[in-house]
Amino acid sequence: MDRTPPPASPAGLSAYVAVSQLLGLTLLATTGAWLGRYRGGVAWHSPLQFNVHPLCMVLGMVFLQGDALLVYRVFRHEAKRSTKALHALLHGLALLIALIGIVAVFESHRTKSIPDMYSLHSWCGMAAFVLYLLQWLLGCGFFLLPRASFSLRSRYKPQHVFFGIALFALSIAACLLGITEMLLFNIKDSYSHFVPEGVLANTLGVLLVAFGLVVAYVLTRDDWKRPPLAEEMALSMDFKTLTEGESPGG
Amino acid sequence: MDRTPPPASPAGLSAYVAVSQLLGLTLLATTGAWLGRYRGGVAWHSPLQFNVHPLCMVLGMVFLQGDALLVYRVFRHEAKRSTKALHALLHGLALLIALIGIVAVFESHRTKSIPDMYSLHSWCGMAAFVLYLLQWLLGCGFFLLPRASFSLRSRYKPQHVFFGIALFALSIAACLLGITEMLLFNIKDSYSHFVPEGVLANTLGVLLVAFGLVVAYVLTRDDWKRPPLAEEMALSMDFKTLTEGESPGG
Repeated sequence: MDRTPPPASPAGLSAYVAVSQLLGLTLLATTGAWLGRYRGGVAWHSPLQFNVHPLCMVLGMVFLQGDALLVYRVFRHEAKRSTKALHALLHGLALLIALIGIVAVFESHRTKSIPDMYSLHSWCGMAAFVLYLLQWLLGCGFFLLPRASFSLRSRYKPQHVFFGIALFALSIAACLLGITEMLLFNIKDSYSHFVPEGVLANTLGVLLVAFGLVVAYVLTRDDWKRPPLAEEMALSMDFKTLTEGESPGG
Repeated sequence: MDRTPPPASPAGLSAYVAVSQLLGLTLLATTGAWLGRYRGGVAWHSPLQFNVHPLCMVLGMVFLQGDALLVYRVFRHEAKRSTKALHALLHGLALLIALIGIVAVFESHRTKSIPDMYSLHSWCGMAAFVLYLLQWLLGCGFFLLPRASFSLRSRYKPQHVFFGIALFALSIAACLLGITEMLLFNIKDSYSHFVPEGVLANTLGVLLVAFGLVVAYVLTRDDWKRPPLAEEMALSMDFKTLTEGESPGG
């Protein structure tokens, strides 16, 4: 009968998260509309296999990656362990979907005898994917396995956070490059006449930038960071004592 | 005879700043090499006027903007007023050079009867320039003119810092889009055969990303932030007291 209500989220945070989700869903719908209306749709064993690539990359490397980054801001009063698992799971799902998107473009290139990995888009995109995978593996190794010491975790965490946001930005940049490539390969001559497909794809680019900005803003606002729960403070002190023999008050 | 030596910079900061400057100069040289070796060079009243555009944008919107952002990390023991003036001056110079680059592409388009502002590159690039100009004007208004109150400055500062880094990232993304456009307009058929021009321009793209990463890393490391000088602490307290009637200890 005497339960204290859960602490409220900081003012404004929910609104920004809602806007990010609205932008995220709009950019997925816009990608679908572009591929469905102007590029013949999406299918695996067909000449439309290429279209699986943009769909998977926007879904995995942008929308899911962005939402995985937001997990600690949204679930701020849940147990750290659950939040951490969800963070790792969403990033894992994002990586899996991105991998399907990468297989799609390599298979599609092979079918059409187009060389791989020659463009700036492919260089940036592949760098983003490989580093994102590495970041995920390092994150699991440092923060999910119990072997890393408290001090090692504390030293790695700022790097993990910085590269998390940097790779998210690089992923968005790679998507923008992909949109430009696709437009110049398909509608090079009519693009400059503001044809609907060009305007729609440009709008998708603007939505990607807007989603990235809102997510990055939520992540970097100091007063929106997840506060440690009371039991975590005690636990982390115990952990520190156990792993390093320091006194809890040290 | 009893002068204390100036406080040392944090370990590693100088090395990172040196790497950023090396990357910055390399990316300027790479831009010059690309335009000079493969695109006929740079000239104003000639068909080469277009080439002024990439040169000015890389110099203004990336190199100078990045260096302006680093000013508070590099000159960490100088008077705040001088550092602030240098920060504003470098951003102003960056804007001026970017404006020349924008005039170059509009004039070049007019001469060749090419429409303006239809591509994702132009949308992102123009957004970056206009918002950068706005950010500069707001920065001058809030931090250089003496009229803004201490509390207003404190509330605006986090926004100024966030949008400063975000616009720097958007500027780099716009450059990557410009590189891709230029390659697909000029060497579309040979690009996939890994011709030297394509590889050089892709390398420029990678250098731009690397410069952005190093600058952003230096800017966001908590322990590399500029510490307030002793006299600034006292001054800001006086200022707060004067503008808000608060007690210096409040």
